[in-house]
Formats: sequence, structure tokens, C-alpha cells
Amino acid sequence: MLLKKMMSRVADFPKKIVAVAAADDERMMTVVDEAVRLNLASFMLFGNEEKIRQLMEQKRMNFKHVEIISTEHAELSAQEAVKAVFHGKADVLMKGMVPTSVLLKAVLNKDYGLRVGKLFSHVAAFDIPDYDRLLFITDSAMNVAPTLEQKVQIINNSVEVARSVGLELPKVAPVAAVEVVNPDMQSTVDAAVLTQMNRRGQIKNCLVDGPLALDNAISKDAAQYKGIAGEVAGETDIILVPTLEIGNILYKSLVYFGKANVGGFITGAKAPIVLSSRSDSTLNKVYSIAFALTAIRTEKVLVK
Amino acid sequence: MLLKKMMSRVADFPKKIVAVAAADDERMMTVVDEAVRLNLASFMLFGNEEKIRQLMEQKRMNFKHVEIISTEHAELSAQEAVKAVFHGKADVLMKGMVPTSVLLKAVLNKDYGLRVGKLFSHVAAFDIPDYDRLLFITDSAMNVAPTLEQKVQIINNSVEVARSVGLELPKVAPVAAVEVVNPDMQSTVDAAVLTQMNRRGQIKNCLVDGPLALDNAISKDAAQYKGIAGEVAGETDIILVPTLEIGNILYKSLVYFGKANVGGFITGAKAPIVLSSRSDSTLNKVYSIAFALTAIRTEKVLVK
Repeated sequence: MLLKKMMSRVADFPKKIVAVAAADDERMMTVVDEAVRLNLASFMLFGNEEKIRQLMEQKRMNFKHVEIISTEHAELSAQEAVKAVFHGKADVLMKGMVPTSVLLKAVLNKDYGLRVGKLFSHVAAFDIPDYDRLLFITDSAMNVAPTLEQKVQIINNSVEVARSVGLELPKVAPVAAVEVVNPDMQSTVDAAVLTQMNRRGQIKNCLVDGPLALDNAISKDAAQYKGIAGEVAGETDIILVPTLEIGNILYKSLVYFGKANVGGFITGAKAPIVLSSRSDSTLNKVYSIAFALTAIRTEKVLVK
Repeated sequence: MLLKKMMSRVADFPKKIVAVAAADDERMMTVVDEAVRLNLASFMLFGNEEKIRQLMEQKRMNFKHVEIISTEHAELSAQEAVKAVFHGKADVLMKGMVPTSVLLKAVLNKDYGLRVGKLFSHVAAFDIPDYDRLLFITDSAMNVAPTLEQKVQIINNSVEVARSVGLELPKVAPVAAVEVVNPDMQSTVDAAVLTQMNRRGQIKNCLVDGPLALDNAISKDAAQYKGIAGEVAGETDIILVPTLEIGNILYKSLVYFGKANVGGFITGAKAPIVLSSRSDSTLNKVYSIAFALTAIRTEKVLVK
């Protein structure tokens, strides 16, 4: 319900613009159609104009909130979509039927790319039945095996996103297999260091406490069993996973077995980049758009 | 329902004996009480006799299926429980209020320990709403970062367990973040090698196919989206996780968000070793006992 609520608030705001690279694809246009019907955004669609027009007519879509920019092939489409964001004509970048590597190449272009000196990282917001808040997980899609320094930046990126959806002081749990420091498990050592960096003011605007195991991060009962106090245990907003592989498997476990809905995007660039994969559901892709649009609002959107 | 079914079948068989190291603990005795009431096993309880008697009287337990062996402290209790298994007086070893490290020290004793030349590994059986079979996950508790050779043994151990619960030819998915080989992700390389070793007959009595991402391991639809054929995708019985950390987080995600029930034990020793942790529920501890007892039956127990 929290992502749905987020989505309905986005619909109340003045429209922002999403640039879609290689929108000439049936599944992509289903997402655009749904987002337009829900009044979430206007779209700049880059790709084969004829194909896009055909798909829009098939779906009886209104052309009012849609601008089509004809491009000859997917790579060009990626470049033009990135340029639109670079020049401020669009507010969010979204991947259509173009390989992630091709889109990221354009994003990293030195002349018109979207780097602003920050690490790129992925933030996903999960809406899980029976968990009383959005659970952010980072980074399950961008950084394979982040160093301690990269973990600091990944936390900073995710905290900025969490604050944009109304969490003044998000609670961050660097998770591991255990909740005690084990020098043989780097993730537990990093988690302890990140916690202390937070206490020293080197990581701001959040509360970090780790290592925590997943159960004591999200369950007060589990935390009490283990005698873990603190303000994060059992009330985690942001889970920092040690590696992309862990994040990926946790992500899929939540979607397939936890019946969670999810939206996510890459943060750290000039604008949010929605990279959802082919196998994501239409609904979750629409949530990703709504989540990205929420994160760039200046209006405060409290999702609780 | 599958674990429940497994449990009710165990109750029909002649009783086997579970040796509990350091049973003099309220929570442990709740588990023993429940297991006795369900007619799963007889128990040899090692620990402070007076304390155990007190707890049994509080719970109005029947002394018929329980033998108490007085030991002076937890370490001795671990040693005596292990010896009982070594001498064939008990069929399953279970950890009570003694640290895992202390119990394992006794298990690895050269004179009366339980090593039989195999790698020890943990197998957990998850009963997940909406998944049509038991999902075995290995190894989420014993081997931190298994090598390729250790992964072979972990698969072999888990296949033996899966076959003992009636799966003639279990389907094994070595999972990773992606379903293609990426030389920069060792888990994907190992998964490909394990698959080919299975085809060459070096890993027997099962079907191995990896790398698979979690979604295409357990969902036919997700596998089809990605164009993955084969007999394992979408029908996985056994998930081999790349590291203990991944296994641990997946385990907890399934229990807390997937509403799964689970039973598990260490395999590869002379007898199953149930190591459930303090924070496991009583029901899941009882399932662990039932699962361990099923795995050592010579009668075939088909759980479907």
C-alpha cells in the first residue's frame, strides 16, 4: 500500500518529464501507457517513431502527454535521451529496449553525460506485507563488491533518497550473516566501521548500526532474543547489503516469496535512472517511475 | 504443509533416539516436550538432572520416552552426547544450551567424534506458501566461502538428504546474481563447472543446472522471460548458495518475509546434527528434528 500511496501523491504534483531510451517496444509502451493513465508524468519517447505510434494507437493512448523523438537505432536513442536529461529537458532517464551497458555508456559520456562526481548506486524500495514501513535495499544492481569507501557513498545516496520520501533520519542496517564482528567476515568489520563513522559525524542525516543479521534488522523480537538494543534493530529503513549478489538474491526472494512490490532506480547521477529489467512486472516498473519522481520533488512527500 | 506431513509420517515409524547436549534449558525442554507429544522420537537428555526434572514436571511431561544423563557442565554434556551417538546409543545429535563451537569441538574429537571423512554441511528444507515442493537450501550455516571442491561435496550431501525424503533425482540450482557466466563473478563460473561435472557423471544422482538467478531457479515464468530451458529452471529442489552470508540472508528472508517454515541440520557426520539457533521458533526446531529423523530412515518417505 505504501508504494501505491506514493504513486497517488505523485499524480497530484505538476508533471515532470521522463525520457525513455528505445521506447519502441510493446512491453515498454505498456508501462508508459499505465504511467500516463495514472497521471504520473509526461514522456519523451526516443526510438522508431512509426513503431511507437503504432503501439500507441493499438493501446488507444492519448498523445497529449507524449513527445516522440525519432532516432535511427537504440544506441542513438540512448544518447539522445541522455542529452535531453543533460540539457534539462527531461527529469528522469528510463531504459527501454536497449542493453544496460549501452545506456550507461551514454550516461558516462564526458560531453553530455550525467555524472556529477558521485558514485552511482541502486536503491530499491520494497513494500512488504506485514512490514510497517518501506524497506530500502541498496545496492542490489550496480556495485558488485563495494569497498568501505564505496559503502559510505552508497549509504549517502540512499539516505538522500529516503529523506526525499519524508524520512528525516532514516535507520540504516549494514547486514551480514551475524550481528557480531568477526574479523574473518569483512562485511561485519565494515559494518562496525560504518557505525562508528556515523557516530563521529562522517556519515550524516541517518542512524547507522551494524553488523545486524537480517532478522534482527527487521524484527524487534529477533533483536531482543539476541539482546541487541539500539534504535535501528527491528526498525530498519535501509538495508545495506555487503555485495550485489546478496542484494540480488534478497531482492528476488522478497518479490517471489515475500510477495513484495518494489520500485527502484540508480541514484548519484544528475537525474534518477530507472533501469528495471525485462522480467520486472509492469506494476513494479510503474512504481519505479513513481519512486524516481518522488525522489526529485522539492515538495515533501511523507510516505507512512 | 509439507513439513507437517513429513512430521506426521515420522510419528508412524519405530522411535529413534535424539541425544540433546545441555538440555537443562527452558526453551530446549519446550522443544523436547513438543516432540515427545508428537511422538517423533525418544530422547537422551544430557545436563543438570535436577533442572531437567523440574522443567519436565512444570510441563507435566511423561518420563516414558526420556532418559536423563546427569553431567556436571555444558562441555561435558556435549562430550557425553557425542559419545552416545558414537557408540550407537543415539541416532541424532542436538544442540541445547551449549555454544556451537563447544559442541563441534566434541563432534570433531579424534577418539569418539562423528567425522566419517566427509565435509560437514548444513541443509535446510523450506516449506514456502505457494511453492509446490520443499525447497532445500545449502549451505547457510557451516561453510563460509566454499571452494569448488567443497561445493561438490555440499551438493553431494544435500542430494543424499533430498533422496532420503523421496526425491529420486533432485534438481540442483547453483544460484548467482545472473544466469550467464561472468568471469568476474566466481559463483557463475563455479556454477557452470558444477553443471558440466554433473553431465560427466562426476556429480551423481541429481540434475545440476547453473548459473541461475533466484527468480529463474524457482519460477517457470521468470525462466521463460530469459529464454532459459532445461529441467531445473523453475523446478528447483535444491538451491546451492555461493556463500554462507547469502544463505543466511536468504534463510531469514524466507522465514520473516516469505512466511516459510523450515527444518535443518548438519549433514556429512556419522549422524545428523541439529544446530538450530536460539531465535528459531519452537515449531521450526521440532521440524528440524523431524527432518533429521526422516533423513536417516531406511523406509522411503515421499514428501509431496
